[in-house]
Amino acid sequence: MKRVFFFGEGEAEGAGLGKETLGGKGSGLAEMTALGIPVPPGFTIETGVCVDFSHGASLDGVHAEVETALARLEHVTEKRFGDPEDPLLVSVRSGARSSMPGMMDTILNLGLTTRALKGLAGISGQRFALDCRRRFLEMYGDVVLRVPRHEFDKTLAEKKREKNVTADVDLSAEDLTDVVGRHEKLIREKTGKPFPEDPREQLWGAIAAVFRSWDNERAKTYRKLHHIPDDWGTAVNVQSMVFGNRGETSATGVAFTRDPSTGERRFYGEFLPNAQGEDVVAGIRTPRPLSSDGSGISLEETMPEAYAELLRLRDVLEKRYRDMQDLEFTIEDRRLYLLQTRNGKRTGFAAVRIATEMVDEGLISEDEAIARVESEQLVQLLAPVFTGKEKEAAVKSGRYLGKGLPAGPGAACGQIAFTADRAVAMAEGGNAVVLVREETSPEDIAGMHASVGILTTRGGMTSHAAVVARGMGKTCVVGAGELSVDAVHGHIRARGLSAGEGEWISVDGSTGEVLLGKISTQPSEVLQVVLDGSVPMEKSPVAMAFTRLLAWADSRRRLGVRANADTPADARVARLFGAEGIGLCRTEHMFFEEKRILAVREMILADNPEGRREALAKILPMQREDFLGIFREMGGRPVTIRLLDPPLHEFLPKEEEAVRRTAEDLGVSPDAVRERVHALAEVNPMLGHRGCRLGITHPEIYETQVCAIFEAAAQALGEGVHPNPEIMIPLVGARGEFDRLKKLVDETARRIAGNRVNYRVGTMIEVPRAALRAGRIALNCDFFSFGTNDLTQLTYGYSRDDAASFLPIYIAEGILPEDPFVSLDQYGVGELVSLATRRGREAKPGLKIGICGEHGGDPRSIEFFHTVGLDYVSCSPFRVPVARLAAARSALAGATAASATA
Amino acid sequence: MKRVFFFGEGEAEGAGLGKETLGGKGSGLAEMTALGIPVPPGFTIETGVCVDFSHGASLDGVHAEVETALARLEHVTEKRFGDPEDPLLVSVRSGARSSMPGMMDTILNLGLTTRALKGLAGISGQRFALDCRRRFLEMYGDVVLRVPRHEFDKTLAEKKREKNVTADVDLSAEDLTDVVGRHEKLIREKTGKPFPEDPREQLWGAIAAVFRSWDNERAKTYRKLHHIPDDWGTAVNVQSMVFGNRGETSATGVAFTRDPSTGERRFYGEFLPNAQGEDVVAGIRTPRPLSSDGSGISLEETMPEAYAELLRLRDVLEKRYRDMQDLEFTIEDRRLYLLQTRNGKRTGFAAVRIATEMVDEGLISEDEAIARVESEQLVQLLAPVFTGKEKEAAVKSGRYLGKGLPAGPGAACGQIAFTADRAVAMAEGGNAVVLVREETSPEDIAGMHASVGILTTRGGMTSHAAVVARGMGKTCVVGAGELSVDAVHGHIRARGLSAGEGEWISVDGSTGEVLLGKISTQPSEVLQVVLDGSVPMEKSPVAMAFTRLLAWADSRRRLGVRANADTPADARVARLFGAEGIGLCRTEHMFFEEKRILAVREMILADNPEGRREALAKILPMQREDFLGIFREMGGRPVTIRLLDPPLHEFLPKEEEAVRRTAEDLGVSPDAVRERVHALAEVNPMLGHRGCRLGITHPEIYETQVCAIFEAAAQALGEGVHPNPEIMIPLVGARGEFDRLKKLVDETARRIAGNRVNYRVGTMIEVPRAALRAGRIALNCDFFSFGTNDLTQLTYGYSRDDAASFLPIYIAEGILPEDPFVSLDQYGVGELVSLATRRGREAKPGLKIGICGEHGGDPRSIEFFHTVGLDYVSCSPFRVPVARLAAARSALAGATAASATA
Repeated sequence: MKRVFFFGEGEAEGAGLGKETLGGKGSGLAEMTALGIPVPPGFTIETGVCVDFSHGASLDGVHAEVETALARLEHVTEKRFGDPEDPLLVSVRSGARSSMPGMMDTILNLGLTTRALKGLAGISGQRFALDCRRRFLEMYGDVVLRVPRHEFDKTLAEKKREKNVTADVDLSAEDLTDVVGRHEKLIREKTGKPFPEDPREQLWGAIAAVFRSWDNERAKTYRKLHHIPDDWGTAVNVQSMVFGNRGETSATGVAFTRDPSTGERRFYGEFLPNAQGEDVVAGIRTPRPLSSDGSGISLEETMPEAYAELLRLRDVLEKRYRDMQDLEFTIEDRRLYLLQTRNGKRTGFAAVRIATEMVDEGLISEDEAIARVESEQLVQLLAPVFTGKEKEAAVKSGRYLGKGLPAGPGAACGQIAFTADRAVAMAEGGNAVVLVREETSPEDIAGMHASVGILTTRGGMTSHAAVVARGMGKTCVVGAGELSVDAVHGHIRARGLSAGEGEWISVDGSTGEVLLGKISTQPSEVLQVVLDGSVPMEKSPVAMAFTRLLAWADSRRRLGVRANADTPADARVARLFGAEGIGLCRTEHMFFEEKRILAVREMILADNPEGRREALAKILPMQREDFLGIFREMGGRPVTIRLLDPPLHEFLPKEEEAVRRTAEDLGVSPDAVRERVHALAEVNPMLGHRGCRLGITHPEIYETQVCAIFEAAAQALGEGVHPNPEIMIPLVGARGEFDRLKKLVDETARRIAGNRVNYRVGTMIEVPRAALRAGRIALNCDFFSFGTNDLTQLTYGYSRDDAASFLPIYIAEGILPEDPFVSLDQYGVGELVSLATRRGREAKPGLKIGICGEHGGDPRSIEFFHTVGLDYVSCSPFRVPVARLAAARSALAGATAASATA
Repeated sequence: MKRVFFFGEGEAEGAGLGKETLGGKGSGLAEMTALGIPVPPGFTIETGVCVDFSHGASLDGVHAEVETALARLEHVTEKRFGDPEDPLLVSVRSGARSSMPGMMDTILNLGLTTRALKGLAGISGQRFALDCRRRFLEMYGDVVLRVPRHEFDKTLAEKKREKNVTADVDLSAEDLTDVVGRHEKLIREKTGKPFPEDPREQLWGAIAAVFRSWDNERAKTYRKLHHIPDDWGTAVNVQSMVFGNRGETSATGVAFTRDPSTGERRFYGEFLPNAQGEDVVAGIRTPRPLSSDGSGISLEETMPEAYAELLRLRDVLEKRYRDMQDLEFTIEDRRLYLLQTRNGKRTGFAAVRIATEMVDEGLISEDEAIARVESEQLVQLLAPVFTGKEKEAAVKSGRYLGKGLPAGPGAACGQIAFTADRAVAMAEGGNAVVLVREETSPEDIAGMHASVGILTTRGGMTSHAAVVARGMGKTCVVGAGELSVDAVHGHIRARGLSAGEGEWISVDGSTGEVLLGKISTQPSEVLQVVLDGSVPMEKSPVAMAFTRLLAWADSRRRLGVRANADTPADARVARLFGAEGIGLCRTEHMFFEEKRILAVREMILADNPEGRREALAKILPMQREDFLGIFREMGGRPVTIRLLDPPLHEFLPKEEEAVRRTAEDLGVSPDAVRERVHALAEVNPMLGHRGCRLGITHPEIYETQVCAIFEAAAQALGEGVHPNPEIMIPLVGARGEFDRLKKLVDETARRIAGNRVNYRVGTMIEVPRAALRAGRIALNCDFFSFGTNDLTQLTYGYSRDDAASFLPIYIAEGILPEDPFVSLDQYGVGELVSLATRRGREAKPGLKIGICGEHGGDPRSIEFFHTVGLDYVSCSPFRVPVARLAAARSALAGATAASATA
């Protein structure tokens, strides 16, 4: 079986094999080669070799194939590996199926032995050759020989200090000879051996090191965050070097075929003259723009032929890949080479706009557009932005720090952290954190993840910080060069202002502005169109794209989408976001309202049903108004109302002062209040006297709530609204509980509203026993709604309130793959969901089944609920668009899977 | 299909049909008739009619059959129903498959119309006829016409007061004419109609009422307590009357073929001359003995022929039924009739002794002996008895109240309650209660169940109190006639002593003695033989029977039986009771010991692993000694040791004073202690940071415990003991948890003891997810042990600590059939148990699986665990004999079921 694939001179052995085998980079190189695009020739060792290697296999099995490919490479380039005259130099790079920017290792200029150095010097100049050697020693030393990178940096810095220069380019050939000598000495000292001078030994060392880097810590963290399986492995690409650092007619750069931030259809990129690729990505030098902006330094102006060629290739690649591409290119002596093409990472804004515009351009179908936008990305479009007035005021009051590049849209306001570790620690303490760095590196991943915003003072739109932040959907400003960051002493300075760790900073990722202090936020542009109506749709390309994409999604999804909403205001938002009903209206929130809590407490203090009824009579008209408002808002859409769920003690005052005030307000003694607090206290409230247990021991409470619902429904009918209440009994674990309370609901409904109101009575499935006994419970039941929050708590035996002491450790150490409260545990909790669904429907064909736990807004959970065959998901109003898209993506994925197996 | 079965004159249509169809009484009457035993003729309407009737069917369907049977009865008795000259009178009685003494209704003398009254008077005398009519009016009025019984009682009492007499028999015919008239008037007033004079109307009214009584409250309560299904129904027996109240040559009585209290093989019974059956059972008159005791009033002395005939029938019946029989008989004019035979209720003592002695007599097999003893009955044999010295001292100090009949063996010490309701209320408050009554009635069932002992001042060994208490295994003394009870004013008096509600009383059910105050208890006779060795086996028939029965059980059971034991002392008891190992050794109990708790607190207060290790080093030698003691005690038997389970905060002081003392002892500030208490506090400790979660976040704790285990094991090896520790990881919910901790155990074991100690590492299955994921968890696991306590808590979502506020209501109202913490919920929790067992064994054939929750000692749960195929159950040491017997009974029941379906 072939495991090494050559590409070059218009031929690519791996063309069509795809990313699974060749990795993203290898696949791109093969495809581009096959398209006739100028790509330096080379070969790819497939991902399977990495998997075998990480399971302990040796690389001997690919030895012969690599030799064959290397020979062909020598033939094609007309150079020989290790040739002292005109050596073949290669890069060795990783390339996984899914892009993991900067996570794994790369080695450039490999093959540049001491002997070859002289040859290269003869051809390309002494200084260039020495700089290549220096870089090679640094990268190989670090990656393969494990000599810490900073030791090399120190040597270079020392030399610059000695020579009193600041830039690398100011070092002479003589200086570099000295640096190279010191690097070689360092390696000899640290490893006990001289630097390997056999180019093949270099090559195999590099290949093994890149494979090994698949399992380094930062790569593992990245995979965990992005749900990339550990067993995909990376490919290794060995490619002949081209040099962007061969003087001023050379350059290296990156480009996006469309704007990755807004999605606008414009060619967008950056380059550095006389530089190697790593210089751009590392963000150390601030790059120049590709397209003319009048500055005179753009590629369009300085190398117009190369720019024109790039523009041509941009169209070729978009047609070929039918997606926005992220390109890496090098210009060597005015000759353009593409080194990489891949689908570009983009913000949610860009994703939505590119997808819909590509449909209009005939590049992709509507189904593909849906598949192109990750459901979670929509959240960015709904995230708040800074309030214009407040921002102005902040500027006027002298809190403006400066401006960088708007690399990740959104408004982030948080406390400053100067290191990733501090960011993680502060975020764990419950703070909103903005990570402020000169530049970020792969080691900062966890800190970036923990922050609400990222600010760097160096780097461009394609720097590490920008790319990673876009992938995470974080607000990000990069290259804010006016600001100076001193991480050691922990402060940031600009324009005479200064701030330290923990101080508040506001970062506008849509404009690049940075301000000290907090600035309040306002609805995003999409919200101003969709919810407020304050901006007309036609003025907002992004809102238009958003609306069209969701309309396409709606026509493809099978799952219904409802919202969890407790008030008419929430119900309105839900409806405007496209919710088809309310899947969970929690009545207890109404009990907590200031005016009502006193009546609720009076009810709890009464020690007999009559006293409770008296107090409940005061609450009834208020609850009726709540429900009436929601019915008016939702019209004929179903509204699932959950009867009281929390234990009564939650409504009682806890602090001594509150106890006294309550006693006074109710005209009872403080002792009476204290006694009741004491009597109702529970060891494990989560497992206590709540939900339907309360409904059974205190039937007058549920009866009052049901009265309020049907009185409201009757009144709504009078107003011409035809409400569809769905009464939901919480925490049922045995059929007897449900049957008894259904009877109470039915009798009360008949008494209040006769047969006039359409309604259903159902139950939450949130106790494991309810899932197991679903077949019995279903018999008398109109619907199920999975309460996956409690079901997860009980299936794992985790209290959400207490799990913080061990759950993060479990996830960090891989004992659990992820937080089961965020994404449904499909193996444990999920089995109960699918089992209850099957048993419920077997007992009662066509039983309506939904889910109203927080997993209802999580795309991966939604895919599971689609697969299991639920009728709808219900989530918070702001997640409704996400759920609509996720439901459509699940339906399309299912259709694809089905047609693949048909 | 035939539904009415005639019996009489040696022929019985229903002979062989059994209790399922005819009920216990009907079946007995048919069998006895077929055996040629003198039984008044009659017919039985089968139980299925009751079931249909309670589902709303009319009785029309059996009308023709009843008429046919009635005609045959008239033919056989040569009397006519409603005949004014010589009327046929019948009794109408219930009779369910399982005896429910006194729970359902009975009507005697039916057919005694006003016209027939005259005929009967002509034949049997005016007074007798009137007394029969009076009783008929009372019973029919109460049962069929729903006129409260006490209204009739009032009339009778008034009449006696008017005539200044105390006994019914002192009322003249004239007086009775007046009483009958008043009764008839009362019925007319209460029902608005005259008393029905059509005998057929009377008959159908009575049949329907008896069927209805199946669903009265007390019958339902009784069924719930005794796990009798509601859909069994009762049969109705219509039988020609014989009269034990036809003067001094007539009598009525009950007899047991062996002593129901001790099991001794002696004929035992009581009778009343000139009385009807109800008089004996009601306990109003104190009955006379059957066998001669020198008093001259025994049946043997007063009616020797009838006595001799009874003795003969006793043998006939024991041979036929091969079990101890409980007989009802009536002597009418010196002629003996048996009215009922059934297997007699007996104490645990009697059950064990009768079963083993019947094997010796060749009446039954060993298998049958095992089936004859309810596992739970063994508890009585192990219950403590009063300490002789203390009882003597109490007598000497003048606390002796008197003596009654020893109706239910055991020693009960509790607070006095004078009504069943108060007994229930006081017991719910957590008190030990002794119910003190003149006599008990079926309405008192719940109160008797709630009490630890029952004391009555009237009635004999076959009175309601005695029969029911024996059935419940309660300590009981009846007929303590010296004592006078005033329930209205709430006191009991005797010998110048007096006590009120809530005062302590001690009741010796083995001797009949009653004393005021508390008396401490000592081990029962069986314990003195088996555990103490202070009484030799051959001196104790009951200990011998107990030991033999359990030896038979051991040779038949498949399930292993282990004990839950935390100390060497417990381990010893477990071993002497026949435990084959320890199924659960909880290590946290060791942590609580006074000397150790300080080191434990020091460990918890340390905020780093090193500090914790230092404190743990102090605990280690103590734990090692604990384990060594247990290994020595158990020898090579397996000892399952559970690593630390509770959350750390359980070990910290709670009260301010304790906080201060702890701070002082540890040399830290009280604030430091308070801070830690606060930091570790949890909202739901049951779902918090405990079990293996603690083991993962604080590995040094588990490591120390494992060190202690293996150091102890190594030392035991040196002493020639070959311990078999089984290390159990608690609260596992995901495979990663188990694998990580297994590695820690294995590494520590190897470090401490090399390969010298045989051990296993397994997990508790107590989190629903562990049951669902058992197939994965099993892969690396040596054994499972179900922790059914926590599994029940999590499957239902009930906190045992908090469920008291609703669980009793659930059970009382039938929402749950029983407390799932007492007997395993086979449908919900049980499904998880069987699923985990299947998946575990599929993944790892032969996986060893046990259960160590409290259900391990519950006979019905044990039957389930047998059926599911577990390897062993583990229970508290004192339940080990119960579990051994239950396991054998399950195996035999399974074998029977298997051969029945083969």
